[in-house]
Amino acid sequence: MTDTDAPYARRLDAARERLAGADADALVLFPSTNLTYLTGHDEHPSERHFLLFVVADADPVFLVPELAGEQVRAGTPVADVRTWSDDEDPVAAVEAVAEDLALANDAPHVLVDDTMHARFTQDLRRVLPDATWGLASDALADLRAIKDDAEVAALRHAGEAADAVVRDLREMGDEVVGMTETELARLIEDRLEVHGGTGVSFETIVGSGPNGAMPHHTHGDRVIEAGDPVVLDFGTRVDGYPSDQTRTLVFGDAEPPEGFREVHRVVREAQEAAVEAVEPGVTVGAIDAAARDAIAEAGYGDAFVHRTGHGVGLDVHEEPYVVAGGEREVEAGMVFSVEPGVYRPDEFGVRIEDLVVVTDDGCVRLNRTDRDWRTD
Amino acid sequence: MTDTDAPYARRLDAARERLAGADADALVLFPSTNLTYLTGHDEHPSERHFLLFVVADADPVFLVPELAGEQVRAGTPVADVRTWSDDEDPVAAVEAVAEDLALANDAPHVLVDDTMHARFTQDLRRVLPDATWGLASDALADLRAIKDDAEVAALRHAGEAADAVVRDLREMGDEVVGMTETELARLIEDRLEVHGGTGVSFETIVGSGPNGAMPHHTHGDRVIEAGDPVVLDFGTRVDGYPSDQTRTLVFGDAEPPEGFREVHRVVREAQEAAVEAVEPGVTVGAIDAAARDAIAEAGYGDAFVHRTGHGVGLDVHEEPYVVAGGEREVEAGMVFSVEPGVYRPDEFGVRIEDLVVVTDDGCVRLNRTDRDWRTD
Repeated sequence: MTDTDAPYARRLDAARERLAGADADALVLFPSTNLTYLTGHDEHPSERHFLLFVVADADPVFLVPELAGEQVRAGTPVADVRTWSDDEDPVAAVEAVAEDLALANDAPHVLVDDTMHARFTQDLRRVLPDATWGLASDALADLRAIKDDAEVAALRHAGEAADAVVRDLREMGDEVVGMTETELARLIEDRLEVHGGTGVSFETIVGSGPNGAMPHHTHGDRVIEAGDPVVLDFGTRVDGYPSDQTRTLVFGDAEPPEGFREVHRVVREAQEAAVEAVEPGVTVGAIDAAARDAIAEAGYGDAFVHRTGHGVGLDVHEEPYVVAGGEREVEAGMVFSVEPGVYRPDEFGVRIEDLVVVTDDGCVRLNRTDRDWRTD
Repeated sequence: MTDTDAPYARRLDAARERLAGADADALVLFPSTNLTYLTGHDEHPSERHFLLFVVADADPVFLVPELAGEQVRAGTPVADVRTWSDDEDPVAAVEAVAEDLALANDAPHVLVDDTMHARFTQDLRRVLPDATWGLASDALADLRAIKDDAEVAALRHAGEAADAVVRDLREMGDEVVGMTETELARLIEDRLEVHGGTGVSFETIVGSGPNGAMPHHTHGDRVIEAGDPVVLDFGTRVDGYPSDQTRTLVFGDAEPPEGFREVHRVVREAQEAAVEAVEPGVTVGAIDAAARDAIAEAGYGDAFVHRTGHGVGLDVHEEPYVVAGGEREVEAGMVFSVEPGVYRPDEFGVRIEDLVVVTDDGCVRLNRTDRDWRTD
């Protein structure tokens, strides 16, 4: 085991301890961020059985395709790596592991990866017909929600890369006018790499004019005109950890549409109010309410159609979710987005988003660029 | 409904007809290639419930997050699009759909997306505790395995883009020497776009020297030296359909390692033999055996550690899988890879791969570039 294995060995131990807290006998992961978090192994799911079995009182077991065996053995702290080859039945291999770990003996409660594909969960259910089932997040979400220093540092660096791109866009100013959304998205993605990021953490959103009113719009052929509000929601990764921020900017020498200034001011104040509300012990619902109430009081309550935020870690969306009525209390070390928005169909949208890390007595933003809409 | 809806309406009808053949009462999809195939909607899974319910005797129902509603209504042929908002319980919304479709009345057999995440399948099981469960592929895999003309055209164009990049690499010749695998991967990815592709269809593999002996190695910091065998396995997408091909090339003015010429010749002959074996009515096992026997007869049987191929469509890996002993018979319109390989740990690997489309009396390759290892 190398030095770099140390955080993973520690996390695997923590996961095993948490099984009891979740009344669970076993945790079964597949290629996912849970697996990356616990072992460092980073891999996309495929149609092949690639499973990690974690139980409280025995060593973890990896069961992976033969052609991945060498890399898994070299790259993770798990000592017991078993392989199955394409001419073997992987379900038989799963049965053998379940027997060795004494899972098949009783009616175990088994937690499977939240994102585990049905083709694997259906096989697990056949192998363990008497088991009851839960989700890995039952044991791991609280562990993952509190970031350690290395995780916060990676999130901070990813945020700095995104901030640098926002500054680039402000400096471009009216050069942006005449570009299509997709052209601007590609430019943003190139700049994220220039500023030290790797890839994008989600599909880049450039929502110009009325497209900004569709929160799920990514980017398209629409040409950005002077005066268009443009919702710019993008991120990259550093050391595997993502950034996620949004600014709504107006480029070029023209007036933004009627009502935009007022809406932007309201969203900005709502975002500020929600960030102000963050401190240990406050519920996510109270943070959501801080933003939602500010928008509702200004008369735009119906136009804020999504939650105020989401936790960010190896997953861009993870615990804690900052939702209306949410009773979870935030704790120091949590990192989440604060991103209220107001959407006026067929006209424009406004969203302002920063990540914050909860400190002992409040929070610190991981995104620090100007939140104004003016670019000149 | 627009003209472009027509293939999707036809596929939805076909899926409904196939439910009976799979003894199934309902099909539940989430963001996946099955969903793209049936509706045209292309979206990544998230933590939010985004489900399509298909039953034989009623119209399909989409249940999606409120913030995606507008886009789903505009972009799919499904008329009944229902939304749930972040302050509602999505499981209650699932219950309402299940009731409207009369799924909750009896003990239905329900097929869920093969890749559906456990967080959603566990909710579905709670809503339908008396149901039995299968996989969407039980009804859809055979449908998707036979490509229509538009699908073959897209696959062909994606293959042409990859072939053009292989030609570029051959022309570069010893310019490649001194690059790291990752640098060459980025160059390949840029060239794929130049030749008309969009993005990559899987993580680009540049396995130089001993790295080529790890079939799952992607690319790293290793510098490519003159005489290194380099396994080059990459692809892009055209109209959503991927390419997937492999060549093993040697760059620069130096002799490849001892034994390489012989291994390459054997793999190339094995690949040729397997392609020759393809025609309607032949089993996938017979195609696999054509490659495997050629490699075993040359004495390298233990070094061919994976199946001979996999179907390719919206998924880079889908039915039919060309595996040892497989009894499935191939049919005209199927598209799959033929990719035998021999791996000598700590020395080098050789893999040669083309996609083929099965015709009425044989097959046609979708990759046509030279399969030789020489680049000069």
